[in-house]
Amino acid sequence: VSQFAHGVSAAEKGEFKHYMLKEIYEQPAMIKACMEGRISGDRLLEQCFGANAADIFDQVKQVQIIACGTSFHAGIIAKYWIEAFVGIPCMIEVASEYRYRPVVIPPGTLFLTISQSGETADTLAALREVQSRVLASLVICNVPGSSLVRESDLCLMTNAGPEIGVASTKAFTTQLVALMLTTIALGRRNDLTAEVEAKIIRALKALPEQVEQALAMDKDIEEMAQSFAEKHHALFLGRGTLYPIAKEGALKLKEISYIHAESYPAGELKHGPLALVDKDMPVVAVAPQNDMLDKLKANLQEVKARGGQLFVFAGSDRVQSEDATHVLTMPDCDEIMQPVLYTIPLQLLSYHVAVLKGTDVDQPRNLAKSVTVE
Amino acid sequence: VSQFAHGVSAAEKGEFKHYMLKEIYEQPAMIKACMEGRISGDRLLEQCFGANAADIFDQVKQVQIIACGTSFHAGIIAKYWIEAFVGIPCMIEVASEYRYRPVVIPPGTLFLTISQSGETADTLAALREVQSRVLASLVICNVPGSSLVRESDLCLMTNAGPEIGVASTKAFTTQLVALMLTTIALGRRNDLTAEVEAKIIRALKALPEQVEQALAMDKDIEEMAQSFAEKHHALFLGRGTLYPIAKEGALKLKEISYIHAESYPAGELKHGPLALVDKDMPVVAVAPQNDMLDKLKANLQEVKARGGQLFVFAGSDRVQSEDATHVLTMPDCDEIMQPVLYTIPLQLLSYHVAVLKGTDVDQPRNLAKSVTVE
Repeated sequence: VSQFAHGVSAAEKGEFKHYMLKEIYEQPAMIKACMEGRISGDRLLEQCFGANAADIFDQVKQVQIIACGTSFHAGIIAKYWIEAFVGIPCMIEVASEYRYRPVVIPPGTLFLTISQSGETADTLAALREVQSRVLASLVICNVPGSSLVRESDLCLMTNAGPEIGVASTKAFTTQLVALMLTTIALGRRNDLTAEVEAKIIRALKALPEQVEQALAMDKDIEEMAQSFAEKHHALFLGRGTLYPIAKEGALKLKEISYIHAESYPAGELKHGPLALVDKDMPVVAVAPQNDMLDKLKANLQEVKARGGQLFVFAGSDRVQSEDATHVLTMPDCDEIMQPVLYTIPLQLLSYHVAVLKGTDVDQPRNLAKSVTVE
Repeated sequence: VSQFAHGVSAAEKGEFKHYMLKEIYEQPAMIKACMEGRISGDRLLEQCFGANAADIFDQVKQVQIIACGTSFHAGIIAKYWIEAFVGIPCMIEVASEYRYRPVVIPPGTLFLTISQSGETADTLAALREVQSRVLASLVICNVPGSSLVRESDLCLMTNAGPEIGVASTKAFTTQLVALMLTTIALGRRNDLTAEVEAKIIRALKALPEQVEQALAMDKDIEEMAQSFAEKHHALFLGRGTLYPIAKEGALKLKEISYIHAESYPAGELKHGPLALVDKDMPVVAVAPQNDMLDKLKANLQEVKARGGQLFVFAGSDRVQSEDATHVLTMPDCDEIMQPVLYTIPLQLLSYHVAVLKGTDVDQPRNLAKSVTVE
């Protein structure tokens, strides 16, 4: 039996009240496990993708990502990374849409699927549909020997260990690590310099320690959860690579606390959702170290005037606490891997809200762990 | 002064209680206006895009669509159309995300913006950012002489007349018509046969009459609105080219009735939002003439068991009314232009719910007609 964080085996909750909480706390160890044997010094060991990976990567002209649910959120971040660091086009779509429409697949397309279980029905069907028309397929997956692993040309396992809680946590953050390794492999053949590769590797190596620091926010988040437990709505905002983190934060809250949480790219706020915001809808913003927050704050003046509460996760000294604005300071972190770090408090938030509400955290109503039917 | 539907001039409400209702009812006339002089027999007159359009279209290898809010929803449908009928890649992104990240622009990219006002700040900024790196720019716009019209290489006006209501209605449906004309122009140079072009043109010409028929559903929709007026949540589901219509339906309800309506591609239901559904969250499905509904109904058995109400818009004889399933039969329509037709009852639904709730329909709180700031 493999050993996990806190010396508890995979199938036991140990000291934790729920599997989900155990899995949240396992993330520093699992992120490390996902990098193990795949990095040497400040370089990626690209053999981790398999013996024929180098030949395939040499021919990739663009990437098509397909996934569902939480894995889809990881995919959006990968799209941003691939376009920024590799410099080739990357498209992304949910599997259930992609598989049913006539799609265009340009030559040299790497078909990248992401799935915790490797059995997600729509994702698997999409792969089977286009297998013969793509350059090659690569899956980022957590379950060895699963259908997607068997049927893809290449795979990179997330090595997160069994995930029991229905709401995905460690599978998501390790997917991000695996997707960054993929970005490096593709980037080397394109726009990525050895210097930037080294910088990314350093950011990856610093993650386990930084995630530990983010986990230390637990008590503050538990307190913050009280502002949500009686609410029926919440709005999550982000921009850039933190926009998918806002999406993931909203999905977690939805899944296990049954609060109607919705996410938007912050720039879309004025195009509709702002009409909804009032004292019954707290707003959570994941604020990157850029100028998004100033723009957001201008929009949110109206929200404040109407009694709305704003919770901002931001780097130290980036935001001042004001009336109706609660600032939660994040550990310092290289901007590149911010999405992993900002995920942690949002996982803890949904967990504590669900506990306060007394829902079945590990087995939320209506949901299954692996969506193996359409 | 130009004359509009029901002989009322652009700046007056006439017999209508609100501008929004007037604008909803103007759609048959405005859709016709958007096609006027642009079609001859069963062929597009592509000079409508301007004298140098043919040369530019000859060189297009892919399309990048950029928009915000309602215009973004029109853009998703255009993406599906372009990939299906033209056979070249089409990417789409909200302007506020696209403009702030390092993006990849392959050679031969037509940069297509969509904006009712032509002044949408983020869309305009995105155009300025990439202008020098794209093959050419084309804007689909409703306001002549606006910034986007002046600064784009090509434009196609939607000719919908002044839109006063903040929640966009006729601007959206005429955008779809203009986008289909664009699809034809690009398609001729690629996968679109004269036969399919003729079929599309026939579908376009049939629209004004079919939209009139959809408007005749008004009384049924007014009754249906009563099931929403007391609710705080709603879920809108669609698939394929009707998925963006579900998004647009949810946005309308959000904007003017302040009900927290959210949309999902139907296939994503089991990946999270299903946990939310109960008797307090009515579900609206726009059901294409395909197999989506059977799959959806399987998922919704659980919803029904928990008291959830399902409202399905579908073609005649496609769905049987059952307990907790209300079926609203749509006028017959060619599948190609379905998105326009299915928009109408969802506009009417948001309107009637807002009237029941007594909100300020034409000037919803917190929102501006044109988002000219970021």
